[in-house]
Amino acid sequence: MIILRFNHDGENKTGILDGGKIREITGSCYNEFDLTGTFHKLSDVKLLPPCEPKKVVAVGLNYMDHIVEFGERKIPEEPTIFIKLPHAVIGSEDSIIIPRRAERVDYEAELAVVIKKYCRRVDKEEAKDYILGATCLNDVTERCMQARDGQWTRSKNFETFCPIGPYIVTGLDYNNLDIKLLLNGEIKQHSNTSNMIWNVEELVSFISGIMPLYPGDVVTTGTTRGVGPMVPGDVVEVVIEGIGTLRNYVK
Amino acid sequence: MIILRFNHDGENKTGILDGGKIREITGSCYNEFDLTGTFHKLSDVKLLPPCEPKKVVAVGLNYMDHIVEFGERKIPEEPTIFIKLPHAVIGSEDSIIIPRRAERVDYEAELAVVIKKYCRRVDKEEAKDYILGATCLNDVTERCMQARDGQWTRSKNFETFCPIGPYIVTGLDYNNLDIKLLLNGEIKQHSNTSNMIWNVEELVSFISGIMPLYPGDVVTTGTTRGVGPMVPGDVVEVVIEGIGTLRNYVK
Repeated sequence: MIILRFNHDGENKTGILDGGKIREITGSCYNEFDLTGTFHKLSDVKLLPPCEPKKVVAVGLNYMDHIVEFGERKIPEEPTIFIKLPHAVIGSEDSIIIPRRAERVDYEAELAVVIKKYCRRVDKEEAKDYILGATCLNDVTERCMQARDGQWTRSKNFETFCPIGPYIVTGLDYNNLDIKLLLNGEIKQHSNTSNMIWNVEELVSFISGIMPLYPGDVVTTGTTRGVGPMVPGDVVEVVIEGIGTLRNYVK
Repeated sequence: MIILRFNHDGENKTGILDGGKIREITGSCYNEFDLTGTFHKLSDVKLLPPCEPKKVVAVGLNYMDHIVEFGERKIPEEPTIFIKLPHAVIGSEDSIIIPRRAERVDYEAELAVVIKKYCRRVDKEEAKDYILGATCLNDVTERCMQARDGQWTRSKNFETFCPIGPYIVTGLDYNNLDIKLLLNGEIKQHSNTSNMIWNVEELVSFISGIMPLYPGDVVTTGTTRGVGPMVPGDVVEVVIEGIGTLRNYVK
């Protein structure tokens, strides 16, 4: 199932993609919902971020080739987590705004999963039941502030620094998906989620042992080698097998 | 004015302290409110955290003596920020729960301010207008995970790791308040907020240049020398001049 949120005639709605068209639903995609008989063309709506997270829990170093790229050779013993906040979230086709005083703003293509129900201290075998589906996420990062601050909060939390979308897709094998980042059509990052050090279920289990996750919260799984800067005018796309393309414009 | 939130007969309410008694208000303490004629004794209610932040933005190193205590001698050029999330917030008289697998859980006494209205890119001269008032905060931290992770997210975001309260007090000189931490009645930290490297208005201005702050969000200003561990059975108190005592029990 392909779930999306959109704005039509000024109203925010949820729907599913059905034969290339959006079919509105009533109720909650996290719970019970009913299909309506109302359809829209994709070209007639404005896409919204496919969920409204209270928090995005991000994982820092989860692909060996990205760890090597940053000069660290050791695999951390446990995942390194940090937070991206709701004010940073934008949807597909929205613009990433380079903040004043930013020196270098990088893309980071990531697979993200959306939490389906209250999730606290679940083991990795049960974790899948707490996941609604998967989406694309661009973990936009100001690289110079990240290095200076030590803590990654500032560099990853400017407004528009968390594009998510375009859809939440259910029923995928999260741990075996081709993932690419394209900058102005050119492939800059390319990997498969099977290369993650900790897989999706291990990450959800680990994080749920620290803090509660709520419906709509997002866990994003880290990026692969090939991160690099974006400048105004660029078009940046995260493309994940079975999900689609998260496209954003840099301003 | 002394603002508090409390539960009485199963209902969450807001009030002000008036002659030693709680006087209920209607409306919002962030906006317009009216005093009611309903009074309660403090002993008849359960205190709640005095605000409901969407985020607590915390500052890492803001007292020189604490920086020295951690082996760093250089004053950072800019504040180091990190996030504490709403699930960690508890009120005065609530219990701090030591998580499984924690090795050393420390107290950190801090002055915190509560944001009054939407605050984005304000300069330090205007910052005061965006602050409702001040309260006490204990930035509870798992010290071993903090060192191992590098990022401070996990170590500072276990449930109950963000006691706030007991009250929000308006009209104080935030930058000249005596601040103490007492562990089982013994003074462990003692300073004055005049020793902060960046004062309250500078911090609110700096953070508002990165991200929007909303009514009820909290900015906490860092801790002084003398941090140390707590164990089950301990009583920990943050005492700030003009605000009162934030008291929590360790379990």
